[in-house]
Amino acid sequence: MPTKLGAHTLRLDSTPSVLSFAAVASKKEGEGPLGNKFDILNDDTSFGQQSWEKAESQMQKLCVNKALEKANLSPDAIDYMFAGDLLNQCIGSHYGLRDLSIPFLGLYGACSTMAESLALSSMFVDSGLANQCVAVTSSHFCSAERQFRFPLEYGGQRTPTAQWTVTGSGSVVVGKNVKPPYVKAVCIGTIEDLGIKDVNNMGAAMAPAAAKTIQTFFEDTCTNADNYDLILTGDLGEVGSDLLSQLLAREGISLGTKHNDCGLIIYDRENQKDINAGGSGCGCSATVLCADVLPKLQDGTLKDVLFIATGALMSPTSVQQGESIPGIAHLVYLSSLPGQKGVL
Amino acid sequence: MPTKLGAHTLRLDSTPSVLSFAAVASKKEGEGPLGNKFDILNDDTSFGQQSWEKAESQMQKLCVNKALEKANLSPDAIDYMFAGDLLNQCIGSHYGLRDLSIPFLGLYGACSTMAESLALSSMFVDSGLANQCVAVTSSHFCSAERQFRFPLEYGGQRTPTAQWTVTGSGSVVVGKNVKPPYVKAVCIGTIEDLGIKDVNNMGAAMAPAAAKTIQTFFEDTCTNADNYDLILTGDLGEVGSDLLSQLLAREGISLGTKHNDCGLIIYDRENQKDINAGGSGCGCSATVLCADVLPKLQDGTLKDVLFIATGALMSPTSVQQGESIPGIAHLVYLSSLPGQKGVL
Repeated sequence: MPTKLGAHTLRLDSTPSVLSFAAVASKKEGEGPLGNKFDILNDDTSFGQQSWEKAESQMQKLCVNKALEKANLSPDAIDYMFAGDLLNQCIGSHYGLRDLSIPFLGLYGACSTMAESLALSSMFVDSGLANQCVAVTSSHFCSAERQFRFPLEYGGQRTPTAQWTVTGSGSVVVGKNVKPPYVKAVCIGTIEDLGIKDVNNMGAAMAPAAAKTIQTFFEDTCTNADNYDLILTGDLGEVGSDLLSQLLAREGISLGTKHNDCGLIIYDRENQKDINAGGSGCGCSATVLCADVLPKLQDGTLKDVLFIATGALMSPTSVQQGESIPGIAHLVYLSSLPGQKGVL
Repeated sequence: MPTKLGAHTLRLDSTPSVLSFAAVASKKEGEGPLGNKFDILNDDTSFGQQSWEKAESQMQKLCVNKALEKANLSPDAIDYMFAGDLLNQCIGSHYGLRDLSIPFLGLYGACSTMAESLALSSMFVDSGLANQCVAVTSSHFCSAERQFRFPLEYGGQRTPTAQWTVTGSGSVVVGKNVKPPYVKAVCIGTIEDLGIKDVNNMGAAMAPAAAKTIQTFFEDTCTNADNYDLILTGDLGEVGSDLLSQLLAREGISLGTKHNDCGLIIYDRENQKDINAGGSGCGCSATVLCADVLPKLQDGTLKDVLFIATGALMSPTSVQQGESIPGIAHLVYLSSLPGQKGVL
């Protein structure tokens, strides 16, 4: 059963388990530092499909099937699936997952979707709404570029603050408490908007939401950065990570050396071309979580991790109409230790 | 606490209450049969804003504030808000609700969003994840036309199977069991796709999902149409409603005179121009629920209602790429009677 702590945090007293997880990625991600950690790596970014959108759907399909296979579960053992992506009307999820016949709860959280879907899955299991849930999301560089910016054929220049959308998918199966990693708490974020209007600087637009959610969680739980091994934001990149530090410093909060960002982990920014400020997209935090962080929580290399995926909630239309970019960040506290004997 | 019945139904044993609800609409809806039932009716479809998208955001803002006012609650009394709409990246919700500072769980369920958000709110309250939640969605004829079909200025002809997107918003506050209407059960749908490709015939694309969810709920609960006063689908319109009857008949199920469809209720199809097969959009089921059905459950005119909002999960891009249109339908069982003394 969940226990509310402070303003917006829920402690999940049964500490649900991450039963399995999978990560799918493509060529550029395979050439990065996590290259040998993905469950499925396909150098063909089309994944054998006729369009980039269908390729993205295919990644979600492969990813969920792999996670189910690793958990030794059939689709009918899953009570609910939480999914969404960046594409208009979330077609990556709808077409990728339509054959599974699992009760489907569609989400839109932009790049926060991995945290939103994982948080909801964990809340459902802890509260008795479900025995087992699946959380999944994806992004694809080519489908994102043509939808949010320019068609690839245009060959537009990228600004130094631009980030590179990850071609990848991550999926997690959450169930009752049986083995690590465990989900100990969640903090659902509020929409924050400090007036950033530069669509080539998503990290800056999302940093205020990350700062707000981290601050709220620390206050709600009476903890600080010292209590965790890793405080991992979604895809703030270099610019957004710097801004996060500044915003938290104003509130007297330092993350010290505990902070890292999925957008700074997934690529080798010095040696890989055009990465600029880092990786981004729903697939960024999803693949880093599923390929790198959950394995380390499983084997105890990491003990207490705060995973805070961030989303920028604009559209090309809202930006063209002169609107600023609202952001959101949801936090999931993952631990290698069972029960609530940890920091809460 | 929730109890699972059969394959996909959850009985909500605490029977959460709909504490308040509000409906906002515009000129064409005001001229229809429900014209005097909306909380806020603005003949100016721009709602005083500079764009149709901003008008849609404004409707959601007005609608949530009205529902909160009717429940005598401030935003900080709400644990979670579930919201989404039809616009790319759900900007209707994000910009409309960004100032409320309520933990925000973004959804994408297309025109099923009112049922998805109401179901999730009720599940959260019943399971102890929340004390009070808000569910809200919207659609706007002008923003939907230019995004999904043609700019209004193009003056395109509409096919006989086409439906008219409702300009409106509906919002519900769900809390602990204190007064009618009560939420007694929910059935979250699976994605269904029978291969319909005609984007001007959404009702037909969504009917298979509605049939599947209704059939599943009847089997899970050992009930049939005789147990309910009203079985209300979202926005199947005339074509989709006929198809629903045919699909259910194949399974030996008849809804008899109990079935109605929000798309057939909101407008006067004989006397209002261009309605064709009926109303549609997230705002269709949302406004009919909040302006017409919930008041009748509140005063006991209606006792047991199944509300099944349906969504078509395609995008213009997926249709252009030759894909068929997947549908989804979520069911919420609403009752004027307290406790589980009803039909379950």
